[in-house]
Amino acid sequence: MNRPMTAIPVISGKAVFEAIDPAEAVGRTRIAFERHARGEWVMPAKVYLDSPPHGDFRAMPARGDGLALLKWVTSFPHNTERGLPVVRGVVVLSDATTGEELAVIECSSVTSLRTGAAAAASAQALARADASAVGIIGCGTNGGWAARCLAAIGYGPGVCADVRADAAETLARELGWKVGDREEAAAQDVVVTVTPGEQPVILASDLRPGQHFAVLGADAHGKAEVELEAIERCRLFCDEWEQASAGGELANGVQAGVVRREHVTQLGDVLTGSAEGRRSDAETTLFDSTGLAIQDLAIAQAVYEAWRDGRLEAQTVSL
Amino acid sequence: MNRPMTAIPVISGKAVFEAIDPAEAVGRTRIAFERHARGEWVMPAKVYLDSPPHGDFRAMPARGDGLALLKWVTSFPHNTERGLPVVRGVVVLSDATTGEELAVIECSSVTSLRTGAAAAASAQALARADASAVGIIGCGTNGGWAARCLAAIGYGPGVCADVRADAAETLARELGWKVGDREEAAAQDVVVTVTPGEQPVILASDLRPGQHFAVLGADAHGKAEVELEAIERCRLFCDEWEQASAGGELANGVQAGVVRREHVTQLGDVLTGSAEGRRSDAETTLFDSTGLAIQDLAIAQAVYEAWRDGRLEAQTVSL
Repeated sequence: MNRPMTAIPVISGKAVFEAIDPAEAVGRTRIAFERHARGEWVMPAKVYLDSPPHGDFRAMPARGDGLALLKWVTSFPHNTERGLPVVRGVVVLSDATTGEELAVIECSSVTSLRTGAAAAASAQALARADASAVGIIGCGTNGGWAARCLAAIGYGPGVCADVRADAAETLARELGWKVGDREEAAAQDVVVTVTPGEQPVILASDLRPGQHFAVLGADAHGKAEVELEAIERCRLFCDEWEQASAGGELANGVQAGVVRREHVTQLGDVLTGSAEGRRSDAETTLFDSTGLAIQDLAIAQAVYEAWRDGRLEAQTVSL
Repeated sequence: MNRPMTAIPVISGKAVFEAIDPAEAVGRTRIAFERHARGEWVMPAKVYLDSPPHGDFRAMPARGDGLALLKWVTSFPHNTERGLPVVRGVVVLSDATTGEELAVIECSSVTSLRTGAAAAASAQALARADASAVGIIGCGTNGGWAARCLAAIGYGPGVCADVRADAAETLARELGWKVGDREEAAAQDVVVTVTPGEQPVILASDLRPGQHFAVLGADAHGKAEVELEAIERCRLFCDEWEQASAGGELANGVQAGVVRREHVTQLGDVLTGSAEGRRSDAETTLFDSTGLAIQDLAIAQAVYEAWRDGRLEAQTVSL
């Protein structure tokens, strides 16, 4: 019955966004992909807890740099209709050596930063050196953060497209970008898609040589944002093959037999130099981002350091 | 960037123990086993995040009664040597309909109550009607809670055995039971084992007709508390076949080919009446408890109800 009383910070989403800017999120996320590729950061497969008909909860663990992370996060697609967030939950950060809890962190802020940062990190690694113009298809939370992260590392201006005109306008106004339709957004140098994945938003007819696509919307079985014929014409990259082939954008190609393991390069391997990235200015590259717990760990680590160093305010609680 | 500010309770271990007594824990745990057996409460397999050489973290999700639970819990066996808890972490309870976080609860208190309660619930369901004397082999945290839960539903007095004499003495004094050696504890009507599982503490030569064994220590691959020959002589029960056959006490028997699915009955099926429990006073029954997330859900639900009804004090935080 002897348990030490520990005072741990509970860090709000607002505090996360104040402490970690998009440029830092991109840098941290790159490091996560590199360390994971080197086997230094590890991550078992995420677990889904279905909660029909509303959506699902996901438990996502990762470990690296002496920290252990668990993200408990929802994907409740229909919550938008009820005025509730689709993505919510908490991140718990623990000491991997003692098991001690170090922090509880609001989860959608971490998710937004790491998701946006992955799109930007993929562009940095895979887009043409002269790429600048951005297309955002789907200007919800994660589309917005992809745009902010790309802008933070020098991309833009861009074209914001969304079936909800106000979402596109709000984002365009914030960044000084413009509103356009899907086709116009899909014609830019770097194109990010973050839609519900219920129908393709990138068609084979959209592709032109040298483009880079970061497709973020398909994070579960049955979702797809890119026509199969378009996938076949791209050099393919992903965050992690196991996840991407099982429930990401590439899953449909795998099922159709047109995408195999040897066709797809993991981003971390490009970043560490152990695999080839873009081979020519003419190639069209496509990065399938399914979202990894190691990315969350990268952001949570930055948040925890900010708190530890007194750069972030948080309530503390005792368990 | 619009996220609702939610004030959620962070509930300490002390508050959990003050709000939920062992008898309520047993009742709630029985309900969890029953609902799970009926398919009303669901639970994907737990995920292990190894943290060598210290131990591992486990992410354990479950859903039922409109609630979704995630337990993030350590098993760091060598922490005892460092004066740190072996089991620690947090439980996050969410609304399964909206995804909203409802509570963060200290985890070792929930774990202790549900682990002890499972041993007691198994005795209630499987021990002989005239069973009363208890043997506790391993008087650490969970051994203590098994003893308290058994005492709360009318079992005892008992014999407390532990290689650490002070652990056995402390528990015996608390409950008015006596201290004895392993052999003496193993001779009682209801015998609970909660040891590190590095060597057998129940030998075939210990068994006598009519005993009930609740074996709790083997919760991961490679652990065993019961001699294979003793397992072969018992009627076998478990909390869940998948977990028990993969990493519980029964795993060694499965590997040796002497335990098969058809030999083992899940406790929930006995409680709902869909499977037979003890068949005669002469049978020796053995319940392999590996620890299920649905048990944690049962306790967390009780804790949350206690907070909601004003019977429990907690800090609240905003994410």
